[in-house]
Amino acid sequence: MTLPPTTLNPKRTVSELKELRALTSDVNGAQRVAWTDTWLAARNWLASKLEGLPVEHHYDAAGNNWFTLPGASEKSLLIGGHLDSVPNGGWLDGSLNVIAGLEVLRRFATEFNGKPPVTIRLVDWADEEGARFGRSLLGSSAFAGTHSIAADRGRTDRDGIKMEDALRRCDVEMDNLPNAAIEQNHAAAYLELHIEQGPVLEGRNLPLGVVLGTKGVERHNITFHGQEAHSGSTPMNARRDALAAAAKLALELRTITKKHPDAVCTMGSLKTFPGIATAVVGRSEATLDQRDLDPGVLAQMFREAQEASQRFAGEENCTVEWSRIWSIEPVPFHPELLDLCEQAVREVSGKSVRLPSGPLHDAAEVARAGIPAVMMFVQSLKGISHNKIEDTREDHLEMSVVALNLLASKTCDWIIRTK
Amino acid sequence: MTLPPTTLNPKRTVSELKELRALTSDVNGAQRVAWTDTWLAARNWLASKLEGLPVEHHYDAAGNNWFTLPGASEKSLLIGGHLDSVPNGGWLDGSLNVIAGLEVLRRFATEFNGKPPVTIRLVDWADEEGARFGRSLLGSSAFAGTHSIAADRGRTDRDGIKMEDALRRCDVEMDNLPNAAIEQNHAAAYLELHIEQGPVLEGRNLPLGVVLGTKGVERHNITFHGQEAHSGSTPMNARRDALAAAAKLALELRTITKKHPDAVCTMGSLKTFPGIATAVVGRSEATLDQRDLDPGVLAQMFREAQEASQRFAGEENCTVEWSRIWSIEPVPFHPELLDLCEQAVREVSGKSVRLPSGPLHDAAEVARAGIPAVMMFVQSLKGISHNKIEDTREDHLEMSVVALNLLASKTCDWIIRTK
Repeated sequence: MTLPPTTLNPKRTVSELKELRALTSDVNGAQRVAWTDTWLAARNWLASKLEGLPVEHHYDAAGNNWFTLPGASEKSLLIGGHLDSVPNGGWLDGSLNVIAGLEVLRRFATEFNGKPPVTIRLVDWADEEGARFGRSLLGSSAFAGTHSIAADRGRTDRDGIKMEDALRRCDVEMDNLPNAAIEQNHAAAYLELHIEQGPVLEGRNLPLGVVLGTKGVERHNITFHGQEAHSGSTPMNARRDALAAAAKLALELRTITKKHPDAVCTMGSLKTFPGIATAVVGRSEATLDQRDLDPGVLAQMFREAQEASQRFAGEENCTVEWSRIWSIEPVPFHPELLDLCEQAVREVSGKSVRLPSGPLHDAAEVARAGIPAVMMFVQSLKGISHNKIEDTREDHLEMSVVALNLLASKTCDWIIRTK
Repeated sequence: MTLPPTTLNPKRTVSELKELRALTSDVNGAQRVAWTDTWLAARNWLASKLEGLPVEHHYDAAGNNWFTLPGASEKSLLIGGHLDSVPNGGWLDGSLNVIAGLEVLRRFATEFNGKPPVTIRLVDWADEEGARFGRSLLGSSAFAGTHSIAADRGRTDRDGIKMEDALRRCDVEMDNLPNAAIEQNHAAAYLELHIEQGPVLEGRNLPLGVVLGTKGVERHNITFHGQEAHSGSTPMNARRDALAAAAKLALELRTITKKHPDAVCTMGSLKTFPGIATAVVGRSEATLDQRDLDPGVLAQMFREAQEASQRFAGEENCTVEWSRIWSIEPVPFHPELLDLCEQAVREVSGKSVRLPSGPLHDAAEVARAGIPAVMMFVQSLKGISHNKIEDTREDHLEMSVVALNLLASKTCDWIIRTK
């Protein structure tokens, strides 16, 4: 691909991703944790890349980072991502979205002499990962009006620093977070490119895919209570083994998901108490994370897991209790934008697939605000992310920039045609 | 039971157990952890109880606490127990053995005007529990010559205090531990009464039982290595779930023990890494504790667990590695003493049962030194020990003192008859 310097340059995106990596990573990976100096440095770097373009730049009340290229219409096409990473993260998760969006913004500014038919806005959401305070999608949920300040005010990081203080240091007041909703004004559509973070596209040998929506999540703590007992003196048939009940549930999750091709259920943590070699486990604490795009499937899997836990507790002469950690309903993306995304993906890579996203993304919060949204996935190598070995083939990265750009044009036309 | 004051008084044993409890417990239970001031106070209390009896008293090179009533023969009948407890322990584990032995010693001193036909020795072993430094049976293994100083020299407690220094404070030099073997001289038989610490006697409604020996133990760490992966983006069939492999093994332990009525296998600890709700478990670390009185059964169960772990690792696309924590061979007690113990138990309670001990006891170390040994169990309520709710019916405690006394007389006769 050779392009005149004023048009879309996907190779520049790859090169800018590497530049950002050099600036904000160490030997353990990306360190752009939200509300840290490294994150602020990444945001300043982004602003420097937009110098010379006819864009208005400001941070909203939640610290979201907005670059607006005013168009002939106030109706706005939003393209989003997040520069923040987990600690020891990868070079693409969140950054690709932003830097590909930057390239698309450049193209709009050039092609229309700085005045595209609709307003184009690039947004770098604040604290998508929630890595420091355990609250993901902070900026986009403030934008969407789904954020609850009361639930987050008491959060602290592992050094005991209060979330409120860390945000204030970056000029964000928690009490003002709801004011970010003003950025919804004139928003007509939202696009987000992201690495898949899973093995599906690689397994099907596809560079790009259309994201149907983000799966709903049921996340729970499950505690089995048995009876701690001496491992040497307690006959097998006299035991009330809380580990055995949890082990049965861990294995039952495969049966529960079997009927639903895209469903996933995970026991990610299991703790045993007292947790010593010489005692039968008296108490086990497990986490359960269930996800599907279909609310009915999600509800059925949740019910089946509860029933199974009761059955296994009974079999092992234990009791079981559940407590919800968190849940969110499935968020399907906009059907017409799904079609446009599929067209763009096919035109660039010759084939397409539609798949749900297991991980949550800022796009889900935008869709919950009632704004038509869609996401495009680019293949991840080995399905690994949140790790310094997170990677994607460079030709696939370049294709993703071309496809996002194409989707932006199609969405622009769609806004003018339908709104 | 009314008895003249100079003969065996089992009620006094119960009352002295309560006295010791009042002296050395707090609201959380017994605190007679070896090498602490509370433990030393318990030992001083014991010595005060023996004042006025014609016994020689000394501590050996390992801190074992010996009271010797010289008899017509130097051949010695040893009666043992341990005053040390776990932190927050019960009132009977170890103490019953010593205080019942004290009552039997008193009876011998009275009945024979201080000169029984054989020498009677009461021993309060040092640090049976190993609660502070993780090395159980310290005193009795020094006596038996099975202790390895090199393996224990580096041990520290949770406050960083070196084992060597803690022992020195109690006038025990680690380098001198092997000298405790001198106490084996003239030892002709060893008796130990203990609470069962399990539910078998209570389940069969028996106050007393004969202990066949202590089970051998295979204790191992088992680590399954899979692949950490995102719980939302990793399809069920693409996972390498290290928890699933461990869960299968936890449940397989029932199959492995099924053929062997007294065998036990326990997964007492299972840890998951990274151990968060949103990641498939990449590594799981389990402990396995297997016990049986039959060395062949123990070896077979160990082999079957290893084979099962390999099979499950393969099924889950994981790998597995084993490392031995500790092992000990089964220690059967002396057949003729088993018969004498059964006679004593039957004469006192009308019925008897023979059962292996899952927990280890000092008696096993004495037997390993080649000294004929046997143990008697008294029923535990709910099978609970190492806990402040550890308990035994007082009438059963009294019966156990009577039975131990009877066994001592029979063993005395046996020593004279056979040695």
